[in-house]
Amino acid sequence: MSATTTLTELMEFQRGTEALSSVAERLMWDRETVMPRGAAEQRSEEVAAMEEVLHTRRTDPRVGEWLDGARPATAAETRMVELIDRDFRRASAVPPRLATELARVTSLAQGIWADARAAEAPEDFLPTLDEVVTLKREEAAAYVAAGFGGGDRYDALLEDYEPDISAAEISRLFEGMRPRLAALRDAVLGADRTPAPLSGHFGQEAQIRLARSCATAFGYDWTFGRMDIAVHPFSSGRWQDSRITTRVVESDPFNCLYSTIHEVGHSSYELGVDSDYAFTALGRGVSMGVHESQSRIYENQLGRSRAFAGWLFQRMEEMFGDLSAPDADAFYAAVNRVAPGHIRTEADEVQYNLHIMMRFDLERDLISGKLATDDLVEAWNARFLRDFGLAVDRPANGMLQDVHWAVGLFGYFPTCALGNVYAGCLNRALRRDVPELDEMLARGDAGPAVEWLRENVQRHGSLYRPRDLIEQASGAPVSEAPLLDYLDDKFGEIYEL
Amino acid sequence: MSATTTLTELMEFQRGTEALSSVAERLMWDRETVMPRGAAEQRSEEVAAMEEVLHTRRTDPRVGEWLDGARPATAAETRMVELIDRDFRRASAVPPRLATELARVTSLAQGIWADARAAEAPEDFLPTLDEVVTLKREEAAAYVAAGFGGGDRYDALLEDYEPDISAAEISRLFEGMRPRLAALRDAVLGADRTPAPLSGHFGQEAQIRLARSCATAFGYDWTFGRMDIAVHPFSSGRWQDSRITTRVVESDPFNCLYSTIHEVGHSSYELGVDSDYAFTALGRGVSMGVHESQSRIYENQLGRSRAFAGWLFQRMEEMFGDLSAPDADAFYAAVNRVAPGHIRTEADEVQYNLHIMMRFDLERDLISGKLATDDLVEAWNARFLRDFGLAVDRPANGMLQDVHWAVGLFGYFPTCALGNVYAGCLNRALRRDVPELDEMLARGDAGPAVEWLRENVQRHGSLYRPRDLIEQASGAPVSEAPLLDYLDDKFGEIYEL
Repeated sequence: MSATTTLTELMEFQRGTEALSSVAERLMWDRETVMPRGAAEQRSEEVAAMEEVLHTRRTDPRVGEWLDGARPATAAETRMVELIDRDFRRASAVPPRLATELARVTSLAQGIWADARAAEAPEDFLPTLDEVVTLKREEAAAYVAAGFGGGDRYDALLEDYEPDISAAEISRLFEGMRPRLAALRDAVLGADRTPAPLSGHFGQEAQIRLARSCATAFGYDWTFGRMDIAVHPFSSGRWQDSRITTRVVESDPFNCLYSTIHEVGHSSYELGVDSDYAFTALGRGVSMGVHESQSRIYENQLGRSRAFAGWLFQRMEEMFGDLSAPDADAFYAAVNRVAPGHIRTEADEVQYNLHIMMRFDLERDLISGKLATDDLVEAWNARFLRDFGLAVDRPANGMLQDVHWAVGLFGYFPTCALGNVYAGCLNRALRRDVPELDEMLARGDAGPAVEWLRENVQRHGSLYRPRDLIEQASGAPVSEAPLLDYLDDKFGEIYEL
Repeated sequence: MSATTTLTELMEFQRGTEALSSVAERLMWDRETVMPRGAAEQRSEEVAAMEEVLHTRRTDPRVGEWLDGARPATAAETRMVELIDRDFRRASAVPPRLATELARVTSLAQGIWADARAAEAPEDFLPTLDEVVTLKREEAAAYVAAGFGGGDRYDALLEDYEPDISAAEISRLFEGMRPRLAALRDAVLGADRTPAPLSGHFGQEAQIRLARSCATAFGYDWTFGRMDIAVHPFSSGRWQDSRITTRVVESDPFNCLYSTIHEVGHSSYELGVDSDYAFTALGRGVSMGVHESQSRIYENQLGRSRAFAGWLFQRMEEMFGDLSAPDADAFYAAVNRVAPGHIRTEADEVQYNLHIMMRFDLERDLISGKLATDDLVEAWNARFLRDFGLAVDRPANGMLQDVHWAVGLFGYFPTCALGNVYAGCLNRALRRDVPELDEMLARGDAGPAVEWLRENVQRHGSLYRPRDLIEQASGAPVSEAPLLDYLDDKFGEIYEL
């Protein structure tokens, strides 16, 4: 068989795999949005059947043979082969027994975690978490044995979420951020000016209507998407069908509005990928970090800007009458209010990365074996006190707050802060290239920003490695400095530091 | 390997196939209800990828080996093996080239049919229909060669929708019905009494609310279902997740309400199957005819009864104020109004079966080769005039009205009338066994009827052959007489014949 035929067959097979993986993803969307509540057991079996089909395809011996024989001719083909090869080697690295056991334990652990959190009883959860950690260490060892992670177990896990960067490199970025972030946080919390949060009652229907306007303002194309309600907002899908979800808290409209803009960022990335790459290995966002850079820059650098807040203030006044914020400046300050708190998902732009950095260090120690799960509560509480100057009052406000570790997501957390760093880099270049940005945002039109991001980031899909993509788009090496400069400027002004 | 192990492996493999087929069905539901309109191309690829996975499983050589080695010990196991064997032999009978070609042509034909119907131009559609018929004849021949249909091509196709009955047997039932149905139709249309249809404007939201009440009255369990809007109402799913759809015409609330009750019948059948059979070969309704018997008895014998109409009249008066029908009797007559018309989907209980019987004869002749597609319009129009005493005024009111033949559904139509015959048989037994039925229906509670149907029909899934199931449930041989007696009584009374 010729090398060209081999490549064609590989691509065709990959096309089927991508289509099936898209079906599996649609099934998860269905479960979280529209599925009847009595269908959980059936859905588990359906998901498991799809996973088995996908795993069988990913480890199909023919893929190995095609990969050996393929001779890619273009940069895009070379990259596709590289990505399929990585997927094939990773899927083949994990023994089926281990994969099954991991699926079983993490599925159980989710319920045990929820019960333990409700009962404020970490001791009910820690033995299960220990099982998860043990299995994840085994999985990591299997990846390392197959040549991943350069010998490091945590790096081998990280590669599922953020390939082509090591934990040591992330650590250097984070250590560069910590002192300036902590100093800014201390200055803000010690400032004389303390903006009031928005108070009042904001009806569900009106919030949803406004959220739709915000999504439209950020260029979300409803021809290829839709919005539903979910307990934890997420986005789902690719190519011609990427859907968003949101939630509504009637006392806090920013929850709904900024969740929506955040998910529009994720969905727009998927919808923005060059359609020539659809259902190929290049057809999706390239990493969690780059994905998060899109959702964060939509939500924060653009959505929480003074210009867009001004537009939003007017819309909300029209919709809800007089707000507790007397003017657009007070509204802008409410949108960006910094307050002490234990919960990561409620954190502001200044403190969010500190939450992540703490989790990153703790999970690296869990995987390396330096930290035992038995000592996790103590380690969490000590670290939280040190980083936030605040004692953990109860376990649900401490290490029981996130589900991630229960379901085996080790290596995922750092990508959130990495996304912020990337967003900082992109924002600097965007502001330089699009001088009319604020003028347009003030009119409720993020179009020029969205176009710039589509052109420089989104359309490339997985063609470039994450860091290369960001450096190429921003015209400078990836660094934490642009994010920190942006935060210092923005919060220095709001808090009159 | 022992025969027990062989059977276990076969069952386990079948479980995966059922789960994947359930996923494929969910994908179709999504397309017709919630899918963004720009996602058609992507969805086609997803559906095709799922079809390929399913076809590969259905024709997997291991299934043949397991079937050879399996020694079922119980009646349920014997029936499962029989059904898997049928599915395996049918899936293996069609050459892949033919299957691909059929999928391609029928997919194109749907659009060509829609355009031809809009343009009132049968000549634009007939060449494509001829391609479809030619391919279906080839497919039928392949089934016949594999031992299906007892040598008859039409019977071999029929088996996809209604196994274990021949076209000759159906024909005998239909020929028994025709004279009495025609006589009743003539008497009704010639009667002095001519009930007025319901007139007025009925808002979408109120109709949906009332449709939900109707679904609940018929025991639809919202824990395992949901209702959405679709262009053509359908039901979808099984076991713990069977969803219904409806549509709203604001001038005609019966469209929405009786579509809903009809689909509740289909969904309840699936939800009512013994959960021990879930994701086995017994886990679904046994045939289209039996399925239609459930939807029809819910819709007609129960939903369009005087008792239930009385309840519905009160609900509608509460909701919409005074109706054009002055009292419950006039309302009941409006619900059951018989009027001349060309369109099958708008037909009443009396004329519906005449529409079906005509299509049954024409499609048998198309498949046998006795009727050429070039002569179809003429044959249709002549037959319609003879059966309905009405000339076809334009093609969209004639042979262009239904999409079924375009998409290759030959053998499907007769199951609709067969379902009515089965419903007639069941209704006679139900009325005998549940004397309090009308009293409960008059209170908007179809519970006792639904329980009887669940106990006698629905819970058995595919355990029994269709006719055996109906005969066992009704305690008498299948015959058209109970349906005709019911129609004569009901319409004789309404039209004071």
